[in-house]
Amino acid sequence: MSHDARDGDEAVPHLSPDEFRKLGHKMVDWIADYWSRLDSFPVRSQVPPGSVAAKLPVHPPEEGLGGEPGWDAVFRDLEDVVLPGLTHWQSPSFFAYFPANASGPAVLGELLSAGLGVQGMLWSTSPAATEMETRVLDWLAELTALPASFLSTSATGGGVIQGTASEATLVAMVAARERVRGHGAPANSQWVAYSSTQAHSSVLKAAMLCGVARSASDTVHVRQIETDAHFALRPDALERAIREDLAAGRRPFFVCASVGTTSSGAIDPVRAVAAVLERTGVTASGGWLHVDAAWAGAALVCPEHRALLDGVELSDSFAFNPHKWLLTNFDCNAFYTRDKRALLDALSVTPEYLRNAASASGAVIDYRDWQVPLGRRFRALKLWFVLRHYGARGLRAHIRNHVRLAEHFESQVSGDARFEVAVPRSLALVCFRLEPLAGETPEATDARNRALLDTVNATGKLFLTHTVLPAVDGGPPRYVLRMAIGGTYTEARHVRAAWEALSAAAG
Amino acid sequence: MSHDARDGDEAVPHLSPDEFRKLGHKMVDWIADYWSRLDSFPVRSQVPPGSVAAKLPVHPPEEGLGGEPGWDAVFRDLEDVVLPGLTHWQSPSFFAYFPANASGPAVLGELLSAGLGVQGMLWSTSPAATEMETRVLDWLAELTALPASFLSTSATGGGVIQGTASEATLVAMVAARERVRGHGAPANSQWVAYSSTQAHSSVLKAAMLCGVARSASDTVHVRQIETDAHFALRPDALERAIREDLAAGRRPFFVCASVGTTSSGAIDPVRAVAAVLERTGVTASGGWLHVDAAWAGAALVCPEHRALLDGVELSDSFAFNPHKWLLTNFDCNAFYTRDKRALLDALSVTPEYLRNAASASGAVIDYRDWQVPLGRRFRALKLWFVLRHYGARGLRAHIRNHVRLAEHFESQVSGDARFEVAVPRSLALVCFRLEPLAGETPEATDARNRALLDTVNATGKLFLTHTVLPAVDGGPPRYVLRMAIGGTYTEARHVRAAWEALSAAAG
Repeated sequence: MSHDARDGDEAVPHLSPDEFRKLGHKMVDWIADYWSRLDSFPVRSQVPPGSVAAKLPVHPPEEGLGGEPGWDAVFRDLEDVVLPGLTHWQSPSFFAYFPANASGPAVLGELLSAGLGVQGMLWSTSPAATEMETRVLDWLAELTALPASFLSTSATGGGVIQGTASEATLVAMVAARERVRGHGAPANSQWVAYSSTQAHSSVLKAAMLCGVARSASDTVHVRQIETDAHFALRPDALERAIREDLAAGRRPFFVCASVGTTSSGAIDPVRAVAAVLERTGVTASGGWLHVDAAWAGAALVCPEHRALLDGVELSDSFAFNPHKWLLTNFDCNAFYTRDKRALLDALSVTPEYLRNAASASGAVIDYRDWQVPLGRRFRALKLWFVLRHYGARGLRAHIRNHVRLAEHFESQVSGDARFEVAVPRSLALVCFRLEPLAGETPEATDARNRALLDTVNATGKLFLTHTVLPAVDGGPPRYVLRMAIGGTYTEARHVRAAWEALSAAAG
Repeated sequence: MSHDARDGDEAVPHLSPDEFRKLGHKMVDWIADYWSRLDSFPVRSQVPPGSVAAKLPVHPPEEGLGGEPGWDAVFRDLEDVVLPGLTHWQSPSFFAYFPANASGPAVLGELLSAGLGVQGMLWSTSPAATEMETRVLDWLAELTALPASFLSTSATGGGVIQGTASEATLVAMVAARERVRGHGAPANSQWVAYSSTQAHSSVLKAAMLCGVARSASDTVHVRQIETDAHFALRPDALERAIREDLAAGRRPFFVCASVGTTSSGAIDPVRAVAAVLERTGVTASGGWLHVDAAWAGAALVCPEHRALLDGVELSDSFAFNPHKWLLTNFDCNAFYTRDKRALLDALSVTPEYLRNAASASGAVIDYRDWQVPLGRRFRALKLWFVLRHYGARGLRAHIRNHVRLAEHFESQVSGDARFEVAVPRSLALVCFRLEPLAGETPEATDARNRALLDTVNATGKLFLTHTVLPAVDGGPPRYVLRMAIGGTYTEARHVRAAWEALSAAAG
């Protein structure tokens, strides 16, 4: 019904409930079909820059679609514009970076969250969003055998869903600085944050954001500590660096230990790192140990992988991404701390328009004070759906299958004289390369491996990425391929096909 | 099909495509039903703290749901556990905070984004995610009449979707500091950021995160400038503060002008603020002017509201939230800058595992360098769906209806001797209160207004929030009620009912 603007309401062309149902069903079906077609697409998008943009109108539409039939054009564009421009992260032959698990239950949770459209910045703005998040994160802590001091049922700890591991690291770093200030460090201290050379780039980025690092190449305030033969942080080197900095009047305040680095899945020795912080007095002056297990943390649902956790009870915060390898769509980072007070001290700002009786009572959690943004989606729903749908047993099976596939892949690589495993497999990540030929320069070996990667990726049948591992024992840095197994629907046949493609391309 | 773990793959109980379809359809229908039931729920949740948690199992399930029939329990819990614990942001009688528009097209976009499960951190990790975002943000800039210097087609500008206005402000502030450093300011400068007293709490929080503010009460490094009778920043007071700081050797580097403050919708005079920065030399030394139009920016789709934009071409960045009042589900902040280089300088970190030919060519945008996190969802889809579905005409009608409803509400308030409009209506936000009685103390007036708010909110028929407006002309600060009209499905009858409830409760 259309009105003259001057007479009353103008018609806003909302979808009617019936139209929404029809289109919603169609979209659900489209997604189900997409998942079943995944094998038919080139895994890595093959379009050149600008080709997607070229298919889109330059100007926005003055008139809308005019109802549900108009959406036929949208569904056509999904095929013609969107699909060719996708790198298919859900393809069972996607072995690049780390996995980004989507799953039916998680998608249903994201859909529901969008449909409810509630905003859980405060407990009072939707108690269920807060209380379910608290409970589901306690469930997840139990499933991953985290120390009780990280649970909401402890005196000073608790969990929260952050968007990403980057935000988790930033929040931990800011809380750390605030806590060390609380121990008497002046605000203009020469702050120093530490990680290994292999830590994720988000550590440096967090330091840039919070003003500790003065540039991306500031090696004074963000020290990347050398690693051992397996690319794990060397506690002796960390201790030396911290003592140097203390002697120079700088203020060590934050260490990020990586449990499962991005390059090679290396596991920093958390217990030994904590001992260094204790020994050097960093702990006593409020210093913070954050454990970034973004990818590997999911494996903790299996008892056989819990050695990864050794010493984690000595850390101040621990984070991992169910959105990587635990069947929960991006974004969902599970962040735990045993010092929530430090977070609140660093992040709470309460203007009048957010004041309310429940918050003032102190009886509730307001998660806005645990994170960078104010607003927040109801992300607990997707995690709740995933944990309920799969159960602990299903999650273990998910992890174990991938680890088993990676073991098999590793054995194939090591059984082929042309290849070598570059570093022992970490969970479901295998770093490998073509072995140097007799008399070959390191550059030439790297070039052959780069060419191999380009060749297999160009087939579209699979997608892998690379990294460069640092020099070990006087050798050169090595360009290696990363086989990260962990797709929701990745099966033995996909890994087998990947090996065949690699083997064929190796000549 | 179950296997012995030692023999081969363990069965992971994924939903079959058919089960996903069935459950997806059911969830879509549940949401459509939810929207049509919205009038039947108390708008603000009425549960006491702990009551949702009490309905949830303490421990996670060992066994999963065992397939689609098991989901009946989930749907029962949506009714019994989730719904009572919600504050219904999508209720047409939700007038609290600012609106958080969900819409059918946006929910379909969020669903699709989850189903595709691609991660657009780099152009190469899904070219469509990047190129569609760029184009859709150019569309939105055209729809809101932003200066051409903010478009991707300009030499140095462009847009990006951030999660929230808080993140937009943080990113702008970090870019600002980097740019001023580039103009020769030492890293340990006494940085000073400015906004009005009425700016959103995220300005202070950003300053705390990035280390400029040393605490939530640091008034040296975050200066909140006094406002005029309409609660807009006073350029003369800003100029005085900047000159004081310069004289004291501090370094003014960032100003946030608010176009539509959270408390009362006040509009800071962007052009005059820019002139102050120019006059004081702050601009010449790299200082940054950010315009936060989180809520009001949506109104720019209507030509009659574009006076709000006066001077915006002199700002360095501009952001607003389609997730507030433009029918696009949270989270979706549209952030524009005319100096993307400054963002990249402040936020780029490129480890080996993210290097790729497309990025190295410089021909593409990698949006990870424009934001805090590394990973990113394909949020352009929901914005694309909204802009296509409604068209410019539909968006204008959406805004105009709410503004018209607010005009009518304002006239009712001002026509009732018991009430007063506290400050002239801003777009669709009306701040009002019960007028002081003869001889009444300010505290008593505030108390009567607080009681009125509690009374109407307790009915469950509507939900409003309050704010405190600062003293003007020697008067006391005033506790006022905020009527923020802008729900996707809010119609004249809902606003009428709200007025009747307020009027009845006023006695």
